[in-house]
Amino acid sequence: MKEQKDMLIVLSGGLDSTTLLYEYKERIAMAITFDYGSKHNASEIFFAQEHTKKMGIEHLIIPLQFINTYFKSDLLQSGGAIPQGEYSQDNMKSTVVPFRNGIMLSIAAGIAESNDLSSILIANHFGDHQIYPDCRSSFIEPMSQAIGQGTSNNIQLLAPYTDINKEDIVRKGLVLGIDYSRTWSCYEGGEQQCGVCATCLERKGSFTKIGAKDPTVYKE
Amino acid sequence: MKEQKDMLIVLSGGLDSTTLLYEYKERIAMAITFDYGSKHNASEIFFAQEHTKKMGIEHLIIPLQFINTYFKSDLLQSGGAIPQGEYSQDNMKSTVVPFRNGIMLSIAAGIAESNDLSSILIANHFGDHQIYPDCRSSFIEPMSQAIGQGTSNNIQLLAPYTDINKEDIVRKGLVLGIDYSRTWSCYEGGEQQCGVCATCLERKGSFTKIGAKDPTVYKE
Repeated sequence: MKEQKDMLIVLSGGLDSTTLLYEYKERIAMAITFDYGSKHNASEIFFAQEHTKKMGIEHLIIPLQFINTYFKSDLLQSGGAIPQGEYSQDNMKSTVVPFRNGIMLSIAAGIAESNDLSSILIANHFGDHQIYPDCRSSFIEPMSQAIGQGTSNNIQLLAPYTDINKEDIVRKGLVLGIDYSRTWSCYEGGEQQCGVCATCLERKGSFTKIGAKDPTVYKE
Repeated sequence: MKEQKDMLIVLSGGLDSTTLLYEYKERIAMAITFDYGSKHNASEIFFAQEHTKKMGIEHLIIPLQFINTYFKSDLLQSGGAIPQGEYSQDNMKSTVVPFRNGIMLSIAAGIAESNDLSSILIANHFGDHQIYPDCRSSFIEPMSQAIGQGTSNNIQLLAPYTDINKEDIVRKGLVLGIDYSRTWSCYEGGEQQCGVCATCLERKGSFTKIGAKDPTVYKE
């Protein structure tokens, strides 16, 4: 018996959400990607489109340009330079886009309900917890309840990577046969990932930690 | 000592949120109104602008046209006709815009955090509970927790009308001296409120119940 396609995924085109897309592909009816004016948005969207097209999954790109206009974050085109060096609270706090996951999940809930889908998927993971408050389970749990109570069909929120690390995600993805060179992490954006920003270093480290080869071609 | 202006209000230009604007005006630094493609959006925005301009409160209009494109609701320009007759579960359910308050509050939380404001205000009230799941306290409570936990500054959500009715709101507003002819309720939109849709009937009823004169000029 074929499983029902009843899920909507919040897909960035990055390593984490692309893994989630492949893990749940039999259940996913629709993917949504947000164009909110981050420096790396165009690079991410390119890969999100590539995977969903290949899989024949309906893919919506939702424009949220007001985030670039009215929000303060160095991740945005309107913000300052992307910090360099290893990920830490001090250097990366300026890349937080306030309540971004809340906004994305709320829109996902509305689109899921409008299309009679029963669940939404998001790929927040444990490594994000220290810096990004809207990636922690202390956010995901009440948000999940708010979405269930605030929709007529009691939409479910699934965030299955909340308690695992990026290297655990890569391990899953390699088993699933994902070509990670076709995903984007680098906060700088552009044609090739820089290889030296905190996000590139974190990406490289997740392959190193599990002794796997990183297929990404970096600028440096 | 002057009170600190540390609040952001979600303002539609309707009777409820305009009352909330006047009640908290000494604390409100910023108002946001959403242009999401409802039939009555332009009429609402007109009044939201009028009040905030008069008060000298910064007012942002946030475009969310993707709601009109991708969401299913008869409230939207893309939806069917507005139902007629008294408000009830049966006729008005088609006007629900799925998870609208979740979306508006999430964006409000992000803008509040970007502007160092500590609280956001919304005017959901008890009369909305039966039909709109995202107006009930069972939604407001977890959403409030999600916003607090998901922001770095622990943004507070205030929804002071959750347990009172529309007539209680009108009673407050008349004490505050609000000219309710400068607010918009009618779901049909246009130049003048129709006077016969469920929302107009509810508006009229809230004045009648407290024995007050409704200053609105209706089409019929």
